[in-house]
Amino acid sequence: MTRVAVFGATGYGGVELVRLLLDHPEVELTYLARHSTVGENIAQFYQHLGGAIDMEIQEIDVPAASEVADLMFFCLPHAVGAEYVAEALELGNKVLDFSADCRLKSAGVYEQYYGEHPRPDLLEQAVYGLPELHREDIPSTQLTAVPGCYPTSAILALAPAVDAGLIEPNVIVDSKSGVSGAGRKLSLTTHYTECNESVAAYAIAKHRHTPEMVQELSTLGPEMMVTFTPHLIPMNRGILSTCYAQLAGATSLTDALEVYRDFYDGEPFIRVLDEGLVPATKHVSGSNFCDIGLAIDENAGRLIAVAAIDNLIKGLAGAAVQCMNLMIGCDETTALSRYPFWP
Amino acid sequence: MTRVAVFGATGYGGVELVRLLLDHPEVELTYLARHSTVGENIAQFYQHLGGAIDMEIQEIDVPAASEVADLMFFCLPHAVGAEYVAEALELGNKVLDFSADCRLKSAGVYEQYYGEHPRPDLLEQAVYGLPELHREDIPSTQLTAVPGCYPTSAILALAPAVDAGLIEPNVIVDSKSGVSGAGRKLSLTTHYTECNESVAAYAIAKHRHTPEMVQELSTLGPEMMVTFTPHLIPMNRGILSTCYAQLAGATSLTDALEVYRDFYDGEPFIRVLDEGLVPATKHVSGSNFCDIGLAIDENAGRLIAVAAIDNLIKGLAGAAVQCMNLMIGCDETTALSRYPFWP
Amino acid sequence: MTRVAVFGATGYGGVELVRLLLDHPEVELTYLARHSTVGENIAQFYQHLGGAIDMEIQEIDVPAASEVADLMFFCLPHAVGAEYVAEALELGNKVLDFSADCRLKSAGVYEQYYGEHPRPDLLEQAVYGLPELHREDIPSTQLTAVPGCYPTSAILALAPAVDAGLIEPNVIVDSKSGVSGAGRKLSLTTHYTECNESVAAYAIAKHRHTPEMVQELSTLGPEMMVTFTPHLIPMNRGILSTCYAQLAGATSLTDALEVYRDFYDGEPFIRVLDEGLVPATKHVSGSNFCDIGLAIDENAGRLIAVAAIDNLIKGLAGAAVQCMNLMIGCDETTALSRYPFWP
Amino acid sequence: MTRVAVFGATGYGGVELVRLLLDHPEVELTYLARHSTVGENIAQFYQHLGGAIDMEIQEIDVPAASEVADLMFFCLPHAVGAEYVAEALELGNKVLDFSADCRLKSAGVYEQYYGEHPRPDLLEQAVYGLPELHREDIPSTQLTAVPGCYPTSAILALAPAVDAGLIEPNVIVDSKSGVSGAGRKLSLTTHYTECNESVAAYAIAKHRHTPEMVQELSTLGPEMMVTFTPHLIPMNRGILSTCYAQLAGATSLTDALEVYRDFYDGEPFIRVLDEGLVPATKHVSGSNFCDIGLAIDENAGRLIAVAAIDNLIKGLAGAAVQCMNLMIGCDETTALSRYPFWP
Repeated sequence: MTRVAVFGATGYGGVELVRLLLDHPEVELTYLARHSTVGENIAQFYQHLGGAIDMEIQEIDVPAASEVADLMFFCLPHAVGAEYVAEALELGNKVLDFSADCRLKSAGVYEQYYGEHPRPDLLEQAVYGLPELHREDIPSTQLTAVPGCYPTSAILALAPAVDAGLIEPNVIVDSKSGVSGAGRKLSLTTHYTECNESVAAYAIAKHRHTPEMVQELSTLGPEMMVTFTPHLIPMNRGILSTCYAQLAGATSLTDALEVYRDFYDGEPFIRVLDEGLVPATKHVSGSNFCDIGLAIDENAGRLIAVAAIDNLIKGLAGAAVQCMNLMIGCDETTALSRYPFWP
Repeated sequence: MTRVAVFGATGYGGVELVRLLLDHPEVELTYLARHSTVGENIAQFYQHLGGAIDMEIQEIDVPAASEVADLMFFCLPHAVGAEYVAEALELGNKVLDFSADCRLKSAGVYEQYYGEHPRPDLLEQAVYGLPELHREDIPSTQLTAVPGCYPTSAILALAPAVDAGLIEPNVIVDSKSGVSGAGRKLSLTTHYTECNESVAAYAIAKHRHTPEMVQELSTLGPEMMVTFTPHLIPMNRGILSTCYAQLAGATSLTDALEVYRDFYDGEPFIRVLDEGLVPATKHVSGSNFCDIGLAIDENAGRLIAVAAIDNLIKGLAGAAVQCMNLMIGCDETTALSRYPFWP
Repeated sequence: MTRVAVFGATGYGGVELVRLLLDHPEVELTYLARHSTVGENIAQFYQHLGGAIDMEIQEIDVPAASEVADLMFFCLPHAVGAEYVAEALELGNKVLDFSADCRLKSAGVYEQYYGEHPRPDLLEQAVYGLPELHREDIPSTQLTAVPGCYPTSAILALAPAVDAGLIEPNVIVDSKSGVSGAGRKLSLTTHYTECNESVAAYAIAKHRHTPEMVQELSTLGPEMMVTFTPHLIPMNRGILSTCYAQLAGATSLTDALEVYRDFYDGEPFIRVLDEGLVPATKHVSGSNFCDIGLAIDENAGRLIAVAAIDNLIKGLAGAAVQCMNLMIGCDETTALSRYPFWP
Repeated sequence: MTRVAVFGATGYGGVELVRLLLDHPEVELTYLARHSTVGENIAQFYQHLGGAIDMEIQEIDVPAASEVADLMFFCLPHAVGAEYVAEALELGNKVLDFSADCRLKSAGVYEQYYGEHPRPDLLEQAVYGLPELHREDIPSTQLTAVPGCYPTSAILALAPAVDAGLIEPNVIVDSKSGVSGAGRKLSLTTHYTECNESVAAYAIAKHRHTPEMVQELSTLGPEMMVTFTPHLIPMNRGILSTCYAQLAGATSLTDALEVYRDFYDGEPFIRVLDEGLVPATKHVSGSNFCDIGLAIDENAGRLIAVAAIDNLIKGLAGAAVQCMNLMIGCDETTALSRYPFWP
């Protein structure tokens, strides 16, 4: 039984993590913390968790948590949690960090997108927590960076093609995200009546998740160029990423699918769809699956790879649990085996 | 390990049942059937179940199913499944029926709402599958009628008040249901663009679920009068029933809550909310919970009891699994313990 | 040409009013104001109005507005605008007030729900701006109180029955509202991911709109008792009110419909539906219509009257324009004749 | 006063057209027709139009319609209406066709996407009804082909860049459409519970609207290559097209915006957004506007042009009315001047 602490337990990523951990037979939740409001039960923030845990929300006190926990999740905004992460590592805990602070290998790249890095030393020791690319490194690391939701979908959609040299290293990622990706913080953009019945792009060609895509895809082939446009979609959960790349040479759809199936052979949460099927976010909603579908525009010599994930599960809390399972040595699919909800 | 057959596995109730059973450690799915199309995998009807079960959809052949199963779920339209149910019982199987065919005690009442009953003999032996009212009878019955979704919410909202004699036997049930309650059958009413961004009542004061409410509430007190108005709400899942009743005498909200807490003491899936909290369908979505909140209009001398359920879980497939657990002697909460999704 | 000022032009009611007035041939918008931010074009608050008006947002300065306007709309929160309203009246302007400050006849009742009234003298001179009940008084008044959205639907649903003595003076109003009714102010309740895919009641039996219903219905018959429960529905616009009342004597549906048709004879915006048809908010969305449908529960001796309106048009800005048309002597339907949007 | 007939009046395009024409001061609706069901009022298909027109739905009888009308809209599926269109032209009527039958110049290209053309002679005489590209030809034509909804958004997004030679002739159009684009015909894809809370691509790189984009953009520059991927979004109305093209040379965003502003100078329904603003479908919903925003990915040397339209107005019925206005010689904006709905 691993004793687990969750810092930032009341954001959407945190509360989804708590829901998954409550169903995990080899884990015991021992410490829940958040900024500012303490001393209350989690059901005071989330009525749906009424009766779930008889535990008060604590202060963010890493040493205190370290007394009762062996593994810690940090679901805090970037830059806010870095010192806590360092402290937790020093105290010997295993750590999974939800923020961007440990994802990038280069402090310089981090600075371009997020400002100066508060603890650049963390960058070296962190493993990028995408088991499909880094399964060998995760069990032995003390620090896993949980990937961004958009990068997870884009990297999984394109990795096999890059790895096999099927495409030119210059891709377009056009992503569509449900509103939960913006979190629980109030804003006009996510006010119901402002985003319902609308779709819009935002942060065109300058979103912070771009360098993660570049970094991870570049480990599989030549240095990548990525043009990334996220869109906000009026639904709660889900990301669909439609990725466009010029084929490096003539490739049939059958061959491309074969490349993808080989690359993801044995992966418990990747479903490469048969020819003619297309992914939909609803097909994965409530699950840790990533569905991938391919098409080829023969006239234009283009590969179109589409990936669908539940942004809060495979795109965040589920990915974190999957990595945790590897880090604590239990079956990788524990607490993640449920099929998607329908409808 | 109980071997289970599901007839009508490809409706929304059926597929939700399959999803829950896939997660049940003491159950093995051995036979999936539906009308007309056979010989295909369930993922051909539901892409989200890709990889879930390596089983073909079979014909509706009860004796064949009886060779491999001990317990059968019938998720077929009313009147269609009654003969199959009878056949299954004769062959010694335990049966849970999703239709209205076994819910009412009176063939005459059935006939007023549904037409002539194809097998009135079933009415006597069936137990109404609401564990909160009939837990003692379910373990020993061979036949459980899974309650209607609207009645589940209304009966649970009002039962303690009726039982304690708090209210006059004449109630109004104003229910709001997500669209999944209408099933997967195509209709203009459930065409996306026709029901999205709209709310409407239907079948005012003549819906088929009314006599179930009357029957079950009347077992707890005097013969009830129920005015029932269902409404269609633009969301996938959930039923909220707002119930109005004249108080029989002066009762404080505190006392009324006490009556409800006593009545539901120990119930694993009923949450009586504290004063000031109100139920929302989202608070129970994806779970088997029924949340109940109370208010009193002192000027008018009225009790307002509000109940929220996930119509496909506590209102259908989850209730069926809860009853099945009682019928096969395993823990009542097995496969039903997950907390609601948020958001 | 009437010169018009709008105070509080950037709330949802204000901006909908501006949209309608832009299409009005006998009105000229001369002054737009809001609290705090001034000196900006309205398109800086509402991108959809890009290019609409070449006018800066001004301070709330009634005398300055009075220089350029003859008629003023106050779309300000209750209590905030009362002094401005009084000032505008003193300067000789015609005034339409969107807040609750001028709706109730009794300062005592106002105080129970809103706190002390800042200008109780306004209560006497204001006309309640429901043309279907007060058409004769509106043309000559200097001050019209635009009714609340919920009361408009409930009063229109019940007025003919009360007026004809069809029902007992004790009714239940169960209303379902789209989220725009809560305005543009940020709150967790109206955060997209919190209210999407959910339905909940709020302010059960204590909502501030209750006394308006009581007041207006009581002018048509005996003193009314109203139990009112509003619900939040995941859609942008629309209110559906389902109203329940005990019939005073035996009445057929045909007779009840006849009573309603007579009562609303000649009304340009009321549509009493034929037997068997039910109102839906979508049937009136984008229009000034109020659709009303009736049903009778013969067993229980109850009338169920259902009304649907677009909460921002017939429930707010459209009603205001309808009253303004009467006040300035132009055709009552000017700028309001468009049919609803579909889908 | 132009007398107008509408064939196919009960599809979503037809009914939106009827709504706009009801508000048009220089047009009289004289003939409404649809297949199969005749002899009923339009409100029997669309309750929201109750009281709108005292006219029965007629058979599709072009000579009969020609007795009472001078101008005809055909809102019929492709191939179905071509003979009727030809008949209407022979009888001297002006015609606007909503289908794909008159949009393409090449019968061969038509055949690749739609099958053999029933009346290839129509292709020569039709003008493609995009006033922004063909305003000079529309007033004098007898036959206007109303453009497809997706092509309208993509062509308007890219035309200035193609015309000015800013981009390479090889573009990606990633479009997101509300569900009304799929019409009122029932299908599992547009069943509420199947498409709500989901986003998916469809017809990747093979949608029938592709050749329209190629044809029209190629008239402004070299022969284009277009990779087009449409997506279904859970909302009623709106299309957002995100278009990607390689810049032909170094171009600043300021310069690109200047090119767009010049190209669309004086256009009543095109709004080129200022730097930093992005289009959203909600900003144009309910209006005939097309909003266009630009961004440049300097690293990748790409232009990203985003266009938003209301698919049923600028993408269909509004475009048709705009063209009709030109064909009958009244002001181009008549009946189209209303600002978008909000929220």
